[in-house]
Amino acid sequence: MSDLSLKITIIGAGRAGFQLGRALVLAGHQVPQIMSRQLHKAAAAAAELGSEPVSRLSGIRAGSDLYLLAVSDDAIGSVAAELAACLPEQAFAAHTSGATPAGVLSPHFARYGVFYPLQTLSLERLVDFRQVPLCVQAADAADQQWLFDLGRSISNTVQAVTDEQRAALHLAAVFVNNFTNAMLQAGYEIAERAELPFSLLLPLLEETFQKAQTGPPKAVQTGPALRRDEQTLQRHLRELEGQPELSAVYRAISRYIGGF
Amino acid sequence: MSDLSLKITIIGAGRAGFQLGRALVLAGHQVPQIMSRQLHKAAAAAAELGSEPVSRLSGIRAGSDLYLLAVSDDAIGSVAAELAACLPEQAFAAHTSGATPAGVLSPHFARYGVFYPLQTLSLERLVDFRQVPLCVQAADAADQQWLFDLGRSISNTVQAVTDEQRAALHLAAVFVNNFTNAMLQAGYEIAERAELPFSLLLPLLEETFQKAQTGPPKAVQTGPALRRDEQTLQRHLRELEGQPELSAVYRAISRYIGGF
Repeated sequence: MSDLSLKITIIGAGRAGFQLGRALVLAGHQVPQIMSRQLHKAAAAAAELGSEPVSRLSGIRAGSDLYLLAVSDDAIGSVAAELAACLPEQAFAAHTSGATPAGVLSPHFARYGVFYPLQTLSLERLVDFRQVPLCVQAADAADQQWLFDLGRSISNTVQAVTDEQRAALHLAAVFVNNFTNAMLQAGYEIAERAELPFSLLLPLLEETFQKAQTGPPKAVQTGPALRRDEQTLQRHLRELEGQPELSAVYRAISRYIGGF
Repeated sequence: MSDLSLKITIIGAGRAGFQLGRALVLAGHQVPQIMSRQLHKAAAAAAELGSEPVSRLSGIRAGSDLYLLAVSDDAIGSVAAELAACLPEQAFAAHTSGATPAGVLSPHFARYGVFYPLQTLSLERLVDFRQVPLCVQAADAADQQWLFDLGRSISNTVQAVTDEQRAALHLAAVFVNNFTNAMLQAGYEIAERAELPFSLLLPLLEETFQKAQTGPPKAVQTGPALRRDEQTLQRHLRELEGQPELSAVYRAISRYIGGF
């Protein structure tokens, strides 16, 4: 398939839609149309992808090999319903969400699946999509293989997953990305209050990140919570007095680490 | 000072003592003696540093420019008391702890300070010490400048700090290192339960760390807690049922992020 140029229509010109579109075009595929209810968003993405911008689902044409629904979780069902009404029965639709079961598409499309990029995407920051793991799933085995091959044409890592596995990955991603980032924000705030630059902590951050990749992160865990150093734990909690949210975070994570 | 070879005796042959000794020797300084109550530890470090191994404080000789106490927080006071009894009044001692006030040395040494490497150190994994920020502090201004210069001879980043600032950095380091690592462990466990390789999450981890360094981490925060997506938060908590520690972590961090 890597030699084939496929036609993938994208519904949604947000972070996922735009970055997926960019990766597909770079791999030699075509994005005939990209749709956003905000026409300026569709237009900006379309200009980049060599697509036709569309602002209404009724403007979506038949004839694409795949219709990618890169819209918010809440919108997938209603967008699928409206889109299916414009397309022939054999149209193939996949959503790009980590959190929503594939089956939300089944009332509307005979051929449906999921094409979920496991990465934090932004509009401004271009990622090397070959390094972005893609999780694929389809109701039909041939369709699943087709999505797998499409994934391989833009990424080095494609993983077939079930709904349950994808939900687990989505939850794991919250810990690895959202919560890790929140820990760094806490470090940032504490340094700032002490009138010290966060840059002092960046070598530690780098080393933390390097070490955690060498095996189960648990194996390189250190610190007062692991060694149950009550004196240090209590001193840290005193330093966090007046910051109830951060104190609660400190307590909860220390308890979790205490069980390692 | 960078042309001078100084004599630094090290008490403690654990991770901090050994890695500091290695950096000092690499920078051209001498470590005449290194002491550990476990002689085999002292001997292993001494062999690497070209030092004399010592297993009792009474074996420590006078004549070094600095005595570095790289021992656990609990032990600093008693080791300082015992060591001071073996040394002339003008001996200069510094501990290497992030958590202990400098003043714990004042009953025992007229000249005292702190030489705290802000990095997670291990015996096996050699770090490039030039990239390790050193936090220095001394009771006397000339001693502080001396420690600062010593720091500059082994590291690119030396920061003069107060007790309060050092305590803040130590707490910030717990968030940046210990707690971040615990978040990665949680991601690892969740992936493992779903029979998926943690490696699927490594590109996300890499991107998280890159992004967080571009400014306040808060500025790149994403996820269900930030957008107060109650439906996803509830679904994640259901997935964590039966794991009360991890559920508590999820709740506490989501509440913290909700205040961003």
